[in-house]
Amino acid sequence: MKFLVLQGPNLNMLGKRKASHYGTVTLEEIHSRMEEKAQTIGCELIFHQSSHEGDLVDAIHRLRDEVRGIIVNPAGLTGVGYSLRDAIEDSELPTIEVHLSNIHAREEFRRHSVFSAVAIGQIAGLRWRGYLAALEILNEMVKESG
Amino acid sequence: MKFLVLQGPNLNMLGKRKASHYGTVTLEEIHSRMEEKAQTIGCELIFHQSSHEGDLVDAIHRLRDEVRGIIVNPAGLTGVGYSLRDAIEDSELPTIEVHLSNIHAREEFRRHSVFSAVAIGQIAGLRWRGYLAALEILNEMVKESG
Amino acid sequence: MKFLVLQGPNLNMLGKRKASHYGTVTLEEIHSRMEEKAQTIGCELIFHQSSHEGDLVDAIHRLRDEVRGIIVNPAGLTGVGYSLRDAIEDSELPTIEVHLSNIHAREEFRRHSVFSAVAIGQIAGLRWRGYLAALEILNEMVKESG
Amino acid sequence: MKFLVLQGPNLNMLGKRKASHYGTVTLEEIHSRMEEKAQTIGCELIFHQSSHEGDLVDAIHRLRDEVRGIIVNPAGLTGVGYSLRDAIEDSELPTIEVHLSNIHAREEFRRHSVFSAVAIGQIAGLRWRGYLAALEILNEMVKESG
Amino acid sequence: MKFLVLQGPNLNMLGKRKASHYGTVTLEEIHSRMEEKAQTIGCELIFHQSSHEGDLVDAIHRLRDEVRGIIVNPAGLTGVGYSLRDAIEDSELPTIEVHLSNIHAREEFRRHSVFSAVAIGQIAGLRWRGYLAALEILNEMVKESG
Amino acid sequence: MKFLVLQGPNLNMLGKRKASHYGTVTLEEIHSRMEEKAQTIGCELIFHQSSHEGDLVDAIHRLRDEVRGIIVNPAGLTGVGYSLRDAIEDSELPTIEVHLSNIHAREEFRRHSVFSAVAIGQIAGLRWRGYLAALEILNEMVKESG
Amino acid sequence: MKFLVLQGPNLNMLGKRKASHYGTVTLEEIHSRMEEKAQTIGCELIFHQSSHEGDLVDAIHRLRDEVRGIIVNPAGLTGVGYSLRDAIEDSELPTIEVHLSNIHAREEFRRHSVFSAVAIGQIAGLRWRGYLAALEILNEMVKESG
Amino acid sequence: MKFLVLQGPNLNMLGKRKASHYGTVTLEEIHSRMEEKAQTIGCELIFHQSSHEGDLVDAIHRLRDEVRGIIVNPAGLTGVGYSLRDAIEDSELPTIEVHLSNIHAREEFRRHSVFSAVAIGQIAGLRWRGYLAALEILNEMVKESG
Amino acid sequence: MKFLVLQGPNLNMLGKRKASHYGTVTLEEIHSRMEEKAQTIGCELIFHQSSHEGDLVDAIHRLRDEVRGIIVNPAGLTGVGYSLRDAIEDSELPTIEVHLSNIHAREEFRRHSVFSAVAIGQIAGLRWRGYLAALEILNEMVKESG
Amino acid sequence: MKFLVLQGPNLNMLGKRKASHYGTVTLEEIHSRMEEKAQTIGCELIFHQSSHEGDLVDAIHRLRDEVRGIIVNPAGLTGVGYSLRDAIEDSELPTIEVHLSNIHAREEFRRHSVFSAVAIGQIAGLRWRGYLAALEILNEMVKESG
Amino acid sequence: MKFLVLQGPNLNMLGKRKASHYGTVTLEEIHSRMEEKAQTIGCELIFHQSSHEGDLVDAIHRLRDEVRGIIVNPAGLTGVGYSLRDAIEDSELPTIEVHLSNIHAREEFRRHSVFSAVAIGQIAGLRWRGYLAALEILNEMVKESG
Amino acid sequence: MKFLVLQGPNLNMLGKRKASHYGTVTLEEIHSRMEEKAQTIGCELIFHQSSHEGDLVDAIHRLRDEVRGIIVNPAGLTGVGYSLRDAIEDSELPTIEVHLSNIHAREEFRRHSVFSAVAIGQIAGLRWRGYLAALEILNEMVKESG
Repeated sequence: MKFLVLQGPNLNMLGKRKASHYGTVTLEEIHSRMEEKAQTIGCELIFHQSSHEGDLVDAIHRLRDEVRGIIVNPAGLTGVGYSLRDAIEDSELPTIEVHLSNIHAREEFRRHSVFSAVAIGQIAGLRWRGYLAALEILNEMVKESG
Repeated sequence: MKFLVLQGPNLNMLGKRKASHYGTVTLEEIHSRMEEKAQTIGCELIFHQSSHEGDLVDAIHRLRDEVRGIIVNPAGLTGVGYSLRDAIEDSELPTIEVHLSNIHAREEFRRHSVFSAVAIGQIAGLRWRGYLAALEILNEMVKESG
Repeated sequence: MKFLVLQGPNLNMLGKRKASHYGTVTLEEIHSRMEEKAQTIGCELIFHQSSHEGDLVDAIHRLRDEVRGIIVNPAGLTGVGYSLRDAIEDSELPTIEVHLSNIHAREEFRRHSVFSAVAIGQIAGLRWRGYLAALEILNEMVKESG
Repeated sequence: MKFLVLQGPNLNMLGKRKASHYGTVTLEEIHSRMEEKAQTIGCELIFHQSSHEGDLVDAIHRLRDEVRGIIVNPAGLTGVGYSLRDAIEDSELPTIEVHLSNIHAREEFRRHSVFSAVAIGQIAGLRWRGYLAALEILNEMVKESG
Repeated sequence: MKFLVLQGPNLNMLGKRKASHYGTVTLEEIHSRMEEKAQTIGCELIFHQSSHEGDLVDAIHRLRDEVRGIIVNPAGLTGVGYSLRDAIEDSELPTIEVHLSNIHAREEFRRHSVFSAVAIGQIAGLRWRGYLAALEILNEMVKESG
Repeated sequence: MKFLVLQGPNLNMLGKRKASHYGTVTLEEIHSRMEEKAQTIGCELIFHQSSHEGDLVDAIHRLRDEVRGIIVNPAGLTGVGYSLRDAIEDSELPTIEVHLSNIHAREEFRRHSVFSAVAIGQIAGLRWRGYLAALEILNEMVKESG
Repeated sequence: MKFLVLQGPNLNMLGKRKASHYGTVTLEEIHSRMEEKAQTIGCELIFHQSSHEGDLVDAIHRLRDEVRGIIVNPAGLTGVGYSLRDAIEDSELPTIEVHLSNIHAREEFRRHSVFSAVAIGQIAGLRWRGYLAALEILNEMVKESG
Repeated sequence: MKFLVLQGPNLNMLGKRKASHYGTVTLEEIHSRMEEKAQTIGCELIFHQSSHEGDLVDAIHRLRDEVRGIIVNPAGLTGVGYSLRDAIEDSELPTIEVHLSNIHAREEFRRHSVFSAVAIGQIAGLRWRGYLAALEILNEMVKESG
Repeated sequence: MKFLVLQGPNLNMLGKRKASHYGTVTLEEIHSRMEEKAQTIGCELIFHQSSHEGDLVDAIHRLRDEVRGIIVNPAGLTGVGYSLRDAIEDSELPTIEVHLSNIHAREEFRRHSVFSAVAIGQIAGLRWRGYLAALEILNEMVKESG
Repeated sequence: MKFLVLQGPNLNMLGKRKASHYGTVTLEEIHSRMEEKAQTIGCELIFHQSSHEGDLVDAIHRLRDEVRGIIVNPAGLTGVGYSLRDAIEDSELPTIEVHLSNIHAREEFRRHSVFSAVAIGQIAGLRWRGYLAALEILNEMVKESG
Repeated sequence: MKFLVLQGPNLNMLGKRKASHYGTVTLEEIHSRMEEKAQTIGCELIFHQSSHEGDLVDAIHRLRDEVRGIIVNPAGLTGVGYSLRDAIEDSELPTIEVHLSNIHAREEFRRHSVFSAVAIGQIAGLRWRGYLAALEILNEMVKESG
Repeated sequence: MKFLVLQGPNLNMLGKRKASHYGTVTLEEIHSRMEEKAQTIGCELIFHQSSHEGDLVDAIHRLRDEVRGIIVNPAGLTGVGYSLRDAIEDSELPTIEVHLSNIHAREEFRRHSVFSAVAIGQIAGLRWRGYLAALEILNEMVKESG
């Protein structure tokens, strides 16, 4: 069973960003911890990071028949990424939205996510651990639904 | 006389999308019906689909001296595609906005189109037939205006 | 097969109105072009214009069992004609909303149509041609749905 | 003692309307049940239905000295019928507003009634029974106030 | 030189209405004072009162070539009478809007007039005298503009 | 057949409150008139008044299997009592919302009821008689639905 | 009988201002026409123009026992002159608000007047003639009220 | 190390509630799965459910020196529980907010949480698994911060 | 002469709270300073603190005939405590609202107090001294009004 | 130790104003009671009233090194006096805002004070006594902070 | 060629103000650097600072025929200075708006400038250097336009 | 010392665009004037134009260690380019936002810039000269800060 992990704009710079919001862990480290977890629970991961919304959309089109679910951190696209949102909705894949910081406690414009209506759930503010929890739960839910 | 047909994000997946909103016809079928109509009324069509807003903008820059009008379905860019909108406005080409579903009857965020202010008209909710009507009328209007 | 064409307040004065918004064609000319088109595609039309919302509602009540669809230009009733809207919804007839000018590009109060939620689609800004397109498509759609 | 029962636009079509919202009882049946109740409690009723706001206003002007209270279902005029509202306010007759469905639980635009400020009370969502309750209470209140 | 005086819904009941808002003068008295003033300044008046918006629209259509200006008190149509507003705008006749009470100091919903954008001016709160002032000024302005 | 009558905060002080809003009848008197009516129509009532939202919630939890419907006057909880609202929704019991005064004609904050979305109907402004009407109708509706 | 005529900021530059909004008549000319009218109807006028809100407030304090009414054109203070508004309200003098252009048809920020709540009426858009009408009516109203 | 698990109004009825929103698992089952997890990771849990906001506040006051963190599902208090929110903020204990359903995808009033500003993070829509993830992460974070 | 001092949710934890907002003085110390002041000016005080809104409402019901005025710090109930507000309004007792911090300068949600409409005045931001001032003034005002 | 007492527009007319809002005490009487209190607690006062915002700003510039705190009643400048607000903020002097009436219970436009963000506290609705309380507390707070 | 430099309320205190927002340079220093620059580029400057809006308006009236452009820092008048704005618009002089700090990044109320609609451009956040750039560009633009 | 000059969507078409908004100068000409100025003041420039937001983000990631500041004209991304905004914020480079036209005086949607919160300043409406001023000031500021 494979899952697609979509990382939005600027996330490639993680760990070099303002520590107060996102912590000091790099994206590579997060991905390697996710890989580790994936092996433990018996699934595979395809990672795709891009600062181009179109790339993320294309990735879903290309991979949607191959994977069983999506973990997405839309980052700067959170409030405006309607194209990515439509791609997720079209794919009909169960999706969990992850945000490193608690978007609900930050600037007004970060609070409204256009992805919530198409995601089964959201994890915010729990930094890199949020990805691991998302992976574990998504895996269980997909298994459960057969 | 040539027209540019711009198809926004995810439209390449048409016919594989939720039927209730967009019908079961694929983008290729729509384009072939448009080609047929174009031959009947004596004009040519250039099709360009992309899930990258920048690509759509570049296409206008590249083709704007070659074509006499634009038919655009901005899809997920409807409410946020200011760059595409500016490209259309700059081109000074008569433009008709087409939406497969009736955006005015769907989610709040789909109702406001940033393209309306720069388009001469809008056809919404009439599925693939909306494209044919747009083509026919655009052709007549451009001819009429000489 | 018959269709009802409902023309809202002041449309009887078309062609005498400000040309920039609505063109110079009169309502009689539009209706005669629609008649012509109707003969071509094999259907009949019943026209009803009134500046009284109640008249338009009564017309629907009287004719709703006789016709197979509605083409409506609500004009000044666009944002406030809830009674007309309810009559359309009650009739369960497929309805296309036509606006001569691009209401989405004009004054704020013309942008919100109370009819969108009960119409299958909308054509705006394409002047008298919008009516012909609406007729052609409505006819095809009704035939298609049997 | 007489009361005026005003029925707004489209209510003549009741029972032919979508059952989920308004039930299957026709306006004639509602009126006959009201007549029955009126006889029991010893009062008379004048019914007036119209899809023309002006007709409803004229009815109040004509009958306001003859009746002791009003029961009104403004239907599609609920949010925009300022003229009817002013006629009621001017008449200084105690008025109860009745809605067949629970307008507060439906579309946004049905929730705000311009009649509330001039009515003594409102009954919503209790279908035809709402009229009987309104009649019984209006009758008692008018008697009580002498 | 003739002017059209349009009186909106319920104004036929003036003088029988709540004195605090509109004074005790009847519509007939206002019209007779206007007639008197009209004779003094050498012009003719056509009065039309209706509680049907459609009637007021029809009156403009019928009389617009015969008169040189309009005095309108939209009453309950102030905030929703888009059809009447469009009829005035189409007529291209100079129009003064009169309100008996100071709408800007009353309920929120009376403050926004859809007529302001098409009227040259507005007189509010000066009761019947407002009509006389409107008549005198409209007459002078029309004369002045030749 | 039993019904639960829930009376919100401060309603125990009824009759001692400002007469202009709520009348001079005490809660005990309202309940005794309801009891009388209940005997006439053959049902039983359980009354519960509390100024603690939690108490009202607990009462529903405790009694929801015993009763067939709810009459609730949320009083000060009208706009903020989401917990009480959820308890009603969870119970799946038909519920009628009663307000002594016409909340739609009072202060802005009283107009929006969070209960409307979960109640089948609402009676407002008809004072103690509103409870009797609610009881009678709820009883009939429950019987009717079997 | 004396009246105070208050002219707000920049009105001393009238006639040098954009003709399209305010006409070509200077403030001196308006005042001299008002003087003329005042002599005809038998009253006196005190004029006070200032671009300092405080000056206008001080003028009311100084003159409020000497005059019987106020004609005020708040100009740039229309939406923000709460101090001037309070001075007028405190004075308890009948006040008519005059605007040279139709503020209701111009920029959003000019539409809301903080003076309306304390003025008996408003004349807008009728240029210099608005002052004469205001004067004539104020004079009559004050005489009438004894 | 102990943590406080606060369960808001109506959560005691879980598993008896509408399955579509919250699943079929009871609160007891959730708590027993949490106990199990707690033993595995070496911490203790204190559970407190109440439909009284004051009880939840009191529980924090009583236990805040004994525990090292809070997991809270505010349920119906999500948008109005300012007192509970203040109690959490005062306690200065790291807090994770859990919602069984995806509040961001439901009714408007459920989307805004007053708790977000005082919680380090939020997990929504992942049903009972959300609690386990919250517990695991809270435990790690508290250990990490020493 | 007795006064009721109502202290809202969490105020029992004062002095243990974030010093920056509320200072380091405990509720007991505030009450003892108030007692001292009460003896000086010759009145008695009844203190009631609760984190349960219902308790505060009940306290008013129980004591409202015994006291001559209320000093209330609604704390977390400031924006949502409509039940407490109604209890105060019903009691018809003069009430002063006290806030330790300047709510008008803090988070948006703390700025709007539902109590202002029923309180004679408000003291905010002056910490424990605000209570003493409230007490002194309330005492004088009640004496004065006889 | 000196304090500056700033009195905004129209306050020189106090006691001649509408008694219901501000009482019958004149500004001179308020100032003499403040002088008396100042002598008792050992401080000096500089009074400055003006209906010119600029004068109040200049007074702060001139006196800000001489005084230790400010008591300000902005009156009509409450919602628009950004210049006065900036002068206070720049001065870095502790400031208490006083309003004679309870602005939170009056017209919408009086409720939002631009001064709250720069004042340490606010006293509203307690009439002339509000000034005495402000003086006493400001004096203590300044002494305390050394 | 002369330019008018208008400095709004409190700017005379520059350099004594909060350094974080406006820097440590005084207004005199800014003016002397502007003088220096003016000599270099061959133009003259008239400076006018006032905390009285009326003074700034009067200065424009007095000098508008003498100067060829305006540089204005409205400071506290940014959002409410409609009178100053009207004076600038009337003068028909090219105007550049300068703000020392980046108003778009500060408090909400500083973001909306009423001057933008009448200024050709705006420079914000570049402190004293903003004035020099404004001067240089205004000079070039005026020369260019002949 | 190097600076990065980022030019947003469509700016490559400058000089071919509507002259009224942006002037007739091409992007190449602007860049060559900037190069000239750069040589004079002793710094280097890297230009990057793209109609792809992702490209602009990537450019910052690639060049952020090489340059000392950014000049950005976000064009169509002004209100929606959160990804670009985040890239700028992450880079911690001093940034000046340039707009050719006065966005504050144009359509509503152009007025709100998401870049303002992360830029030190903004220059709008001064056309190509705005770039030169930005360059000069950025250079000085960076030098000054060492």
